[in-house]
Amino acid sequence: MFDNKKDADAYDKMLELAEGFAALLQQHIPSVDEAQAEEFGIFLSKNKEAVMQACKGRVEALSEIDSDATPSNVSPLAAQA
Amino acid sequence: MFDNKKDADAYDKMLELAEGFAALLQQHIPSVDEAQAEEFGIFLSKNKEAVMQACKGRVEALSEIDSDATPSNVSPLAAQA
Repeated sequence: MFDNKKDADAYDKMLELAEGFAALLQQHIPSVDEAQAEEFGIFLSKNKEAVMQACKGRVEALSEIDSDATPSNVSPLAAQA
Repeated sequence: MFDNKKDADAYDKMLELAEGFAALLQQHIPSVDEAQAEEFGIFLSKNKEAVMQACKGRVEALSEIDSDATPSNVSPLAAQA
């Protein structure tokens, strides 16, 4: 799945952080199911740079995430004429 | 509500970050209602130091939050022999 150990380790670390966020979310909002919590955790983890910026005071970093985070199999609605 | 401008500003900043997190959560999991999202946003925002530490690689900072945030009427399962 990964070409080298470095990428594999980075992926593991990303998942570890994602699980941390997911666990907190489920503790706070038990009605959120596990898959949803995991998905949101992965989203925050993949965007941890923006999360850190926001925590440091640049809150708008969070609202800037979504355009960047569009999954690669989803085409932007560029030509919606 | 606040003794001085500094505390008021810090509170505003905390709420602003909380709203950023809450908005992301609602975008990702629309079934979460606004009050729940807000509460979780405030939780993350109030614990932004732990969030930053986790993002920097010390993921366990997230699981350490709860022991601080555990309501005082809940005892840890220390002697589960």
